[in-house]
Amino acid sequence: MPTKPKSKRSFASDNNAGVHPKVLEAIAATNEGHVVAYGDDPYTDAAVVLFRKHFGKEVEVYFVFGGTGANVLGLKAVTEPFHAIICADTAHINVDECGAPEKFTGCKLLSLPTNDGKITVDQIRPFLNAVGFEHHVQPRVISISQSTEMGTVYQPRELKKLSDFAHKNEMLLHMDGARIANAAAGLKASLRAITGDVDVDVLSFGGAKNGMMYGEAVIFFDRGLAKNFKYTRKQGTHLPSKMRFISAQFSALLSNDLWRKNAEHANSMAKLLAQELGRIPLVEVTQKVESNGVFARLPKRYIAALQKQYFFYVWNEQTSEVRFMTSFDTTPQDIRAFVALIKKTLR
Amino acid sequence: MPTKPKSKRSFASDNNAGVHPKVLEAIAATNEGHVVAYGDDPYTDAAVVLFRKHFGKEVEVYFVFGGTGANVLGLKAVTEPFHAIICADTAHINVDECGAPEKFTGCKLLSLPTNDGKITVDQIRPFLNAVGFEHHVQPRVISISQSTEMGTVYQPRELKKLSDFAHKNEMLLHMDGARIANAAAGLKASLRAITGDVDVDVLSFGGAKNGMMYGEAVIFFDRGLAKNFKYTRKQGTHLPSKMRFISAQFSALLSNDLWRKNAEHANSMAKLLAQELGRIPLVEVTQKVESNGVFARLPKRYIAALQKQYFFYVWNEQTSEVRFMTSFDTTPQDIRAFVALIKKTLR
Amino acid sequence: MPTKPKSKRSFASDNNAGVHPKVLEAIAATNEGHVVAYGDDPYTDAAVVLFRKHFGKEVEVYFVFGGTGANVLGLKAVTEPFHAIICADTAHINVDECGAPEKFTGCKLLSLPTNDGKITVDQIRPFLNAVGFEHHVQPRVISISQSTEMGTVYQPRELKKLSDFAHKNEMLLHMDGARIANAAAGLKASLRAITGDVDVDVLSFGGAKNGMMYGEAVIFFDRGLAKNFKYTRKQGTHLPSKMRFISAQFSALLSNDLWRKNAEHANSMAKLLAQELGRIPLVEVTQKVESNGVFARLPKRYIAALQKQYFFYVWNEQTSEVRFMTSFDTTPQDIRAFVALIKKTLR
Amino acid sequence: MPTKPKSKRSFASDNNAGVHPKVLEAIAATNEGHVVAYGDDPYTDAAVVLFRKHFGKEVEVYFVFGGTGANVLGLKAVTEPFHAIICADTAHINVDECGAPEKFTGCKLLSLPTNDGKITVDQIRPFLNAVGFEHHVQPRVISISQSTEMGTVYQPRELKKLSDFAHKNEMLLHMDGARIANAAAGLKASLRAITGDVDVDVLSFGGAKNGMMYGEAVIFFDRGLAKNFKYTRKQGTHLPSKMRFISAQFSALLSNDLWRKNAEHANSMAKLLAQELGRIPLVEVTQKVESNGVFARLPKRYIAALQKQYFFYVWNEQTSEVRFMTSFDTTPQDIRAFVALIKKTLR
Repeated sequence: MPTKPKSKRSFASDNNAGVHPKVLEAIAATNEGHVVAYGDDPYTDAAVVLFRKHFGKEVEVYFVFGGTGANVLGLKAVTEPFHAIICADTAHINVDECGAPEKFTGCKLLSLPTNDGKITVDQIRPFLNAVGFEHHVQPRVISISQSTEMGTVYQPRELKKLSDFAHKNEMLLHMDGARIANAAAGLKASLRAITGDVDVDVLSFGGAKNGMMYGEAVIFFDRGLAKNFKYTRKQGTHLPSKMRFISAQFSALLSNDLWRKNAEHANSMAKLLAQELGRIPLVEVTQKVESNGVFARLPKRYIAALQKQYFFYVWNEQTSEVRFMTSFDTTPQDIRAFVALIKKTLR
Repeated sequence: MPTKPKSKRSFASDNNAGVHPKVLEAIAATNEGHVVAYGDDPYTDAAVVLFRKHFGKEVEVYFVFGGTGANVLGLKAVTEPFHAIICADTAHINVDECGAPEKFTGCKLLSLPTNDGKITVDQIRPFLNAVGFEHHVQPRVISISQSTEMGTVYQPRELKKLSDFAHKNEMLLHMDGARIANAAAGLKASLRAITGDVDVDVLSFGGAKNGMMYGEAVIFFDRGLAKNFKYTRKQGTHLPSKMRFISAQFSALLSNDLWRKNAEHANSMAKLLAQELGRIPLVEVTQKVESNGVFARLPKRYIAALQKQYFFYVWNEQTSEVRFMTSFDTTPQDIRAFVALIKKTLR
Repeated sequence: MPTKPKSKRSFASDNNAGVHPKVLEAIAATNEGHVVAYGDDPYTDAAVVLFRKHFGKEVEVYFVFGGTGANVLGLKAVTEPFHAIICADTAHINVDECGAPEKFTGCKLLSLPTNDGKITVDQIRPFLNAVGFEHHVQPRVISISQSTEMGTVYQPRELKKLSDFAHKNEMLLHMDGARIANAAAGLKASLRAITGDVDVDVLSFGGAKNGMMYGEAVIFFDRGLAKNFKYTRKQGTHLPSKMRFISAQFSALLSNDLWRKNAEHANSMAKLLAQELGRIPLVEVTQKVESNGVFARLPKRYIAALQKQYFFYVWNEQTSEVRFMTSFDTTPQDIRAFVALIKKTLR
Repeated sequence: MPTKPKSKRSFASDNNAGVHPKVLEAIAATNEGHVVAYGDDPYTDAAVVLFRKHFGKEVEVYFVFGGTGANVLGLKAVTEPFHAIICADTAHINVDECGAPEKFTGCKLLSLPTNDGKITVDQIRPFLNAVGFEHHVQPRVISISQSTEMGTVYQPRELKKLSDFAHKNEMLLHMDGARIANAAAGLKASLRAITGDVDVDVLSFGGAKNGMMYGEAVIFFDRGLAKNFKYTRKQGTHLPSKMRFISAQFSALLSNDLWRKNAEHANSMAKLLAQELGRIPLVEVTQKVESNGVFARLPKRYIAALQKQYFFYVWNEQTSEVRFMTSFDTTPQDIRAFVALIKKTLR
């Protein structure tokens, strides 16, 4: 692991960035007097109103501390332990949450191989053979990431196909939206157009990767699914006491299109980076750049040298594929400097 | 439930307060550039150094989002599911965490009746009869709250007695320190004097009730117990991505005695309140005031009227006992105004 | 622990007895040819028909390997992890299953003190204060043992009172019927009269303590509750492959009143023992003898001597109370010989 | 699903067979007088002695009710919830236990594709990349089935390679031995030669598929691993009360080479069946026949007709592959009659 750079902007992850100034302001503005803890406060009420503006007035919204918690608790709310959760093998819930979904839900995850992080109905269909047989886990949830861990994005019609299939087979569609803002920005769509309008059932709405300090929202598009969620959240250790400070952050993000501006900026930086990389002879961009991630193949022998100056992750040791993430605060200068370094190093 | 007051300081809970200005400043000061996520950053390193200064240089410290998470994960780290966790029946882990400890650890909680929130070796001893018999859960952890949920405080010698008993019987001592600062302030002791020095094994060190926005630390006094905790924390959904902002808060709290000043102030406000209440004929203070909580019996018929103006909790419907909590930002004026209202109401 | 006697009949537990000859015959008679495994066989169909004859034709019946499994899986079928299960502090699920209910259901057990193993509505009512508050586990199941671990028996009207209270408050009534045959025999009631007719919702119907080799049935009186039980049973590791051999045992037990004859005999032996003990000056029978258990206080100093010849358990070290269990194969001679020994020893 | 044949021997599964007469005799012979329940009895002592004769005198042996329980509890004994269990995608623990391993251990199962049910070190090695990173489950157990679900068998040197790799990397080797007798018979090896001698750490030793009624043993080759297993077994709901009847069955199986004779017979019937099938033009045997299972491809259109007379499972709908299992009671006449039917049907 490279030594820890203190303040230079890296391409390691969008959560290496800090907090957007407007979010920080909102926190400070919230810090007066006493309010009831655990969410029964006016700041939280206001944030929920904003969520309903963006996602539809029938949604139920619950704030939690972080993304793994949001995924795990959202999944728990709609499963029994004998259920299966179907996902891409690259899914965050499958590889990056240290087995938290299995531990807390008791469910098995059935993962599907993908090239681009997106799964299809045809891949899922064979799992239906297990339905009704008690020896096998019962398919219950299709969980997708939007945008995916590979920087790609599901089109609305692809989402609808998945949700239709799910509902036709007594399953639900769960969306890990840690980077949903980047997806919506990439698709030039509203948040609702790629969630409730295409019949997503449960959504983890991420804040931290788009300029918040902490906090994630679990959104249920069918109120019935949320019936007991307040207990699940508390038992799941994710009921923040000073809730107002999460609420204030969400209000900042969902006001004046801040969520979209941040995401659009990060996406455009990713596009710029991909463009520049595409011109370097020994570099191959390996995934479509549809949000704020760029995947590229580099000659292995140069990687360590680059990592000394900019922290980023090797995604696949075998294929020498690396991942570059951009964030709300990445600048064109950052891109240019980084590209210059790559060019110089690879020369 | 009373309507939600926006900004008046209540006596409902120390987590109805906001964030101490110095903590907020520290957060803002941390918000520059990129650092590696998940704790591998200089702010977190610095905070850990401070923790070691206060608790001893051999301790292992892990930050999590909140208090229930800290308790549950700390307990998980030192138990197998067939173990029993022994605690007071008033313990937060027993009554206020919606069964989170059972759900995540698989353990049974064995609770003991207390008048003052404190348990004793004599109460625990009979559980040893179960040792070695596979039909019964095996006593493994004694978990206490310091200060207790009743506002009382264990003396160092009481703590030592519990830890000695625990260790003699292959058990461990866990301390829920959501309000440990108030206990240390009340005892005029250092943090170490009432934890590591009296052989506490695992501590939840609370920040939110003493002026932080969010964040709690799990401290292991024996490094061996922490061996796998990083996995337990991540699987337990409590690995914050932008860790630096928790670290910065802890650094603020543990610098320049801010933790102690906040706690001392809250304690002194509780003392003042208790003093004043003691002079009101129909009011009886029911617990020793050793930290920042005051328990009192009021005539039932007046309670609703008081709650209309100041939010606080009825602790025991049967005995008409209420709880008043003070916090770092409670002022003598708050106390006087509240006491005046009580007097007027009870007249 | 006393040395292990090979074949003398003891008073330690009804599960120290062997298998009733008619049950063994039924097993042998079932051992021909192949049948489909896991319960899809004619022997199991036949046993279910018999269960429906005894309990009502609308019940759903599932066989499992043993009693702890039956309790735990029956409870799991009707709970979410944030629920509470209310029971007597003497309940088998509370003290004799090594925390299996907590581990598998995730629920908290809320136990109530009793003198005779029976709990009442008045004791349960205060738990309703927690309803709707996410900080607290939500009362969902009242679990009782019939007959109780203290040898006593709930009257039908007491059962109805509990089930009425449960249903009025969105709770369910679970019955651990490890010794339900003894209860029915003691009450001179049908099995249905003390279960479905008084609105019990879920029943563990025990076989092993009444002459079977192994096997227990989970009975749901409301079909809806059983909807997913086949998955819960399999995931709960209690789907026997050669199911027919459990089914055959239940068919034997439920035919020709064998279940009742065995239970009546055991009960009458307990009555005889209690009668005889009542005449011995230093012995005090401490519980009503309503099934096949006798609780008695003996001078402590004689106990070890008696245990050398007859294995039995000390129930309460403090009060020097012991438990004697009779079983289907206990004989009047056994009682007389044992009583003679006690008299001789205490003289 | 075909209608349930009552007594004709099928080729559906070795657990469709009944109980071997010598096992039944042993049960009957055990049915006298009282013995202490839960395994503290002379029959169990005797069975353990026999296990140690076969597996080495240092092994620890625990009896449980069934196979899924044995696997799940054995795995639980050696894992923490943040661990990964690596297995073949065809493994019983992966596809036929309704997620029981995940539910009870909390672990993730990482499954590997295989043609023949056997996994290799080369397939497992990439999982080591996750070691030390808290975002990923930590590889802890390699679990294999011997014989495999595909009727194949690991050679001793293959086992040694797996265990060496496991131990070199702080992992353990778990063996699901539901059909270990068939494997040992197929390899003409002792039980010890393919378990303890090649450094298997934990074994589920199956009885039901080799002539027992119920009962499975969990065997630990390193005593340290079994330290707390008695609690895990009880909490795992698998402590049989009338243990002696499981013990008696194991004693019968392990005496006079009954285990081997039963397995050899079943294996030879599988060989005979495969031989005969190999001569039928439209049938292709698809796996090596190394134990008591035969996998074959049949023209899809004939399968239903055959299933009307003999129950067996279609293993793979896509490839029209079926599975035939033989058992201790399969006769050459059974094979001939079945083969004749196939020939006639396919003509």
